[in-house]
Amino acid sequence: MNNIFNRRSIRKYNNREVSNALLKELLSKAERTPTMGNLQLYSVVVTRNSEMKHKLAPAHFNQPMVENAAVVLTFCADFRRTTIWAENRKGTPGYNNFLSFMNAATDALLYCQTFTNLAEAEGLGTCFLGTTIYNSKAIIELLKLPKLVMPVATLTIGWPDEMPEQPDRLPIESILHEETYTDYTAESIDLYYKVKESLKENKHFVEINHTETLAQIFTDIRYKKSDNEVMSKNLLDALKQQEFI
Amino acid sequence: MNNIFNRRSIRKYNNREVSNALLKELLSKAERTPTMGNLQLYSVVVTRNSEMKHKLAPAHFNQPMVENAAVVLTFCADFRRTTIWAENRKGTPGYNNFLSFMNAATDALLYCQTFTNLAEAEGLGTCFLGTTIYNSKAIIELLKLPKLVMPVATLTIGWPDEMPEQPDRLPIESILHEETYTDYTAESIDLYYKVKESLKENKHFVEINHTETLAQIFTDIRYKKSDNEVMSKNLLDALKQQEFI
Repeated sequence: MNNIFNRRSIRKYNNREVSNALLKELLSKAERTPTMGNLQLYSVVVTRNSEMKHKLAPAHFNQPMVENAAVVLTFCADFRRTTIWAENRKGTPGYNNFLSFMNAATDALLYCQTFTNLAEAEGLGTCFLGTTIYNSKAIIELLKLPKLVMPVATLTIGWPDEMPEQPDRLPIESILHEETYTDYTAESIDLYYKVKESLKENKHFVEINHTETLAQIFTDIRYKKSDNEVMSKNLLDALKQQEFI
Repeated sequence: MNNIFNRRSIRKYNNREVSNALLKELLSKAERTPTMGNLQLYSVVVTRNSEMKHKLAPAHFNQPMVENAAVVLTFCADFRRTTIWAENRKGTPGYNNFLSFMNAATDALLYCQTFTNLAEAEGLGTCFLGTTIYNSKAIIELLKLPKLVMPVATLTIGWPDEMPEQPDRLPIESILHEETYTDYTAESIDLYYKVKESLKENKHFVEINHTETLAQIFTDIRYKKSDNEVMSKNLLDALKQQEFI
């Protein structure tokens, strides 16, 4: 897995086919990921049809890789398969609740990430779309997801046709806490964000966003409180619709 | 990453040290995992102190690997670091909502899984503890997690001292849906669960649990509706306490 060092999201893909055989092989290998009670609380919807990609795109704010990728995978938290299995085997399933959603979302996200690591080790490029939970109701409708199935992650996949700069990451010290959480201070924040804030590309990012600081891009332009609140409501509505709350 | 084929959870560890240097190297490499807006919405609390492990154990239903592992890692959804950064940089952060929790939980779980893949490629054994979200309030208190920090996953880590049977997995066909979700029928469920239900170890599992079917173990003994409902309430309470809802 040393290729993880060179990892970056890939948003442009060439025309080389991503075969079904390879896709199934990688998704099958990824099943080795830990899963709650070995129940595998996830499903994956594969989008190859260009009309379906065109319809999915708005749910992902029309990010161009949705239509340009060979394959779009939507990873779903899925308690439906397990529920039907149990109902048909004299069990009394009780998974229509928030804990069960989190259990299934956890399974789906861990599975998604092992798949990503395997796909990238194979040379494929991927881009993770966090937008899946922003407009989940549109995705549910389009992919015809029944109750107890909730989309939690989307990956676009193809053979890379770009090699973008690798984004910076925070020093590991800023992530780690020994025994108990050491709260951040003005000083430790300055220390941990110093390199990030000094990078040419991040300074450029501030410039084109017309903000004073880098952080303001993530509070005043992207991920704004008002947007987060509207989308929180939509997400909770979708969870109600899918009977997870 | 071909070792993924041989992957199983490891619950018994030998006395060989898991050095801080190795741990930091792996956690640092794992930072390459995709993350929302490159914000890295996660923290990791490292537990090595045996008194702390002893106190953590009940939150994980006293599963013995908590006290026996060299290292216990608690992965947290963390919007606190980003919030303090933004507040100190003239931003107006608005992350005290459910969408932001899901964004940070997603970041933390993806990061956790890449770390797991890397650690296992190095020969380490790990066990994922889903119990983290069952008793999150106890973990929050013990690890002194402030507002906007929520534990979502725990890993126990050490050098393997066992080689248990590898658990079965469902055929990949049962996970995959082409273009739209194909709902399960009595027939497809029979087909997909046939091998699982016929395995000697699963028949033995039914026997020792005194149920009639394998599925009943997961509805009538483990993950019962009544337990799920109590723990859903506790989890939502913890999210309120941490100001994510």
